[in-house]
Amino acid sequence: MAEYTIAVDLMGGDDAPGCVIDGVKQFLPLFPDTKVLMFGREEALAKAREALGSERAEYAQSGDDITMHDEPMLAVRRKQDSSLMLCMKAVKEGRAQAMVSAGSTGALFLAGMVTLRMLKGIDRPALAAVIPGMEKPVMLIDCGANADCQPAYLKQFGLLGSAYMKQVMGVESPRVGLVNIGAEEEKGSKLYKEAHALMKQQQAYGFMGNVEARDVQSSEADVIVCDGFTGNVILKYAEGLSKNLFKMIKTEALASFTGKLGGLLLRGAFGKIKKRMNKDEYGGAPLLGVNGLVVKAHGSSNAYAFRKALEQARKMVMGDLTGQLKLGLEKLSEE
Amino acid sequence: MAEYTIAVDLMGGDDAPGCVIDGVKQFLPLFPDTKVLMFGREEALAKAREALGSERAEYAQSGDDITMHDEPMLAVRRKQDSSLMLCMKAVKEGRAQAMVSAGSTGALFLAGMVTLRMLKGIDRPALAAVIPGMEKPVMLIDCGANADCQPAYLKQFGLLGSAYMKQVMGVESPRVGLVNIGAEEEKGSKLYKEAHALMKQQQAYGFMGNVEARDVQSSEADVIVCDGFTGNVILKYAEGLSKNLFKMIKTEALASFTGKLGGLLLRGAFGKIKKRMNKDEYGGAPLLGVNGLVVKAHGSSNAYAFRKALEQARKMVMGDLTGQLKLGLEKLSEE
Repeated sequence: MAEYTIAVDLMGGDDAPGCVIDGVKQFLPLFPDTKVLMFGREEALAKAREALGSERAEYAQSGDDITMHDEPMLAVRRKQDSSLMLCMKAVKEGRAQAMVSAGSTGALFLAGMVTLRMLKGIDRPALAAVIPGMEKPVMLIDCGANADCQPAYLKQFGLLGSAYMKQVMGVESPRVGLVNIGAEEEKGSKLYKEAHALMKQQQAYGFMGNVEARDVQSSEADVIVCDGFTGNVILKYAEGLSKNLFKMIKTEALASFTGKLGGLLLRGAFGKIKKRMNKDEYGGAPLLGVNGLVVKAHGSSNAYAFRKALEQARKMVMGDLTGQLKLGLEKLSEE
Repeated sequence: MAEYTIAVDLMGGDDAPGCVIDGVKQFLPLFPDTKVLMFGREEALAKAREALGSERAEYAQSGDDITMHDEPMLAVRRKQDSSLMLCMKAVKEGRAQAMVSAGSTGALFLAGMVTLRMLKGIDRPALAAVIPGMEKPVMLIDCGANADCQPAYLKQFGLLGSAYMKQVMGVESPRVGLVNIGAEEEKGSKLYKEAHALMKQQQAYGFMGNVEARDVQSSEADVIVCDGFTGNVILKYAEGLSKNLFKMIKTEALASFTGKLGGLLLRGAFGKIKKRMNKDEYGGAPLLGVNGLVVKAHGSSNAYAFRKALEQARKMVMGDLTGQLKLGLEKLSEE
């Protein structure tokens, strides 16, 4: 009998429900200890049932979908029967221990705050991303949920990230850094100076000080804390710059015969780099700080990315992330 | 007879005075309309005089240098005879029309505010950087001087950047974008939402709306406005990511025989890309918004980078950047 249950939003994502169903289909045979609870509209459910059968897969019908065009707060209030909201309720009521959705980020974030509520000691939940580093993966938190932050939020993000890297990614003693515009502690904006002071004082996780943006992917930090505006800028800038650099290499290589030949010979190397830089490996973006386990899969997830998000959700359950976070937050609040 | 005079700080920069002298030596023969006024300690002056002679080069002795270890505000107050401060005074008193220094950014910024003062209508000057884009160069402003910004500063940065791109880089009608975490105008932090509203209202320059970080180097914008924290994060992250990507390509290429051969054949292409991405081409960082023309050359400038910074200063004088900025600011304040 399956030990873990993950609620799955069949309707979220650019290629839903196809990529969701295919992702679940890849996932289930690999993890006999886990079953899925799928929420979707009638037609999507029929497709899912046909593809997946009923072994470790249950189905429940949802109402009107939350789309990318919906204003998140209105959608969360009015579309209580959407697949996204039904997943959230399944987690709240304990019918599932975690949920995965590739739907609207804003709606997921707000639904998490409203339905699951924040863990005690957390002011605002964060969306985090694990990205490839030169030596090891690194978590960037917050990566877009909170454009305006208070110093205390950043301190809390450090705990959220640290617990995640330990329980889910298996890092023994995660080191937490703060993005900043200089290594010295008096550097930065008012927000970052105050956050630095708070993070330095606490003992609930290992704070290593400021990390300059150039070292985000090459420092010793396992967790890089920043406000959501900065995190979003970093993630999106990285996406743009990598794309531009590879485009330039291609253009220059195609401009000459030797270049073309060189490009051909380097194809294997480029393939390896692309695989190494593939953020799908680490799953989606966990929503951390709410009282329940939620993974936001990328809107553009393919089947593999969705499968990885499911694996990630399973690891979050297995690592008892919520329980560990509660212990950490108690420690943080006692200080 | 020389038409333009540029004050040069012989003592600033990692490789000063050597790279400064070599940069001036490259510059002078190319621009017979310009002379330099060099400030430095006795030994540096002797070297400079030996290398450059006295045709279109004047020399004046300075006192204690401002170093990277000095607290900028104290240094600006106490080291009035430093080469950096003497350059600044030469600009203020009209003995030079512009200055170039590779010295302390913080000291240069503060000295500019204190000695030259702000242009009417400017709350805070900005340090800007022109970086290579996919189709054309783009200015990032502010790139590190003001970690904490008000919405009005960002509006003013738009004008500063627009005037620079027109007068110095020859862009007919510069388009100004605002970095943001979404294209829609209601996106972003409080600062960015308010800045967007202000920039949209003004008519003194062409505002095109938000630009997501992934498009910083590939949008239609000639100027990208952001606060100094975000600008610094973008510049430094770009530096780190490019370095990491090229390092990965090298590692993967060296791992196999075909890879090695491919790398060899692509050497020309990589060289072109590195040249294209070389930020030295556009000079140093102009300090914009003070009543005088100041260029901050990179601390790690080599002779070529310093020469380019001198060319940039000359163009700023030729384009009457200060005069044009005053006109623009009048328009902005009338609205």
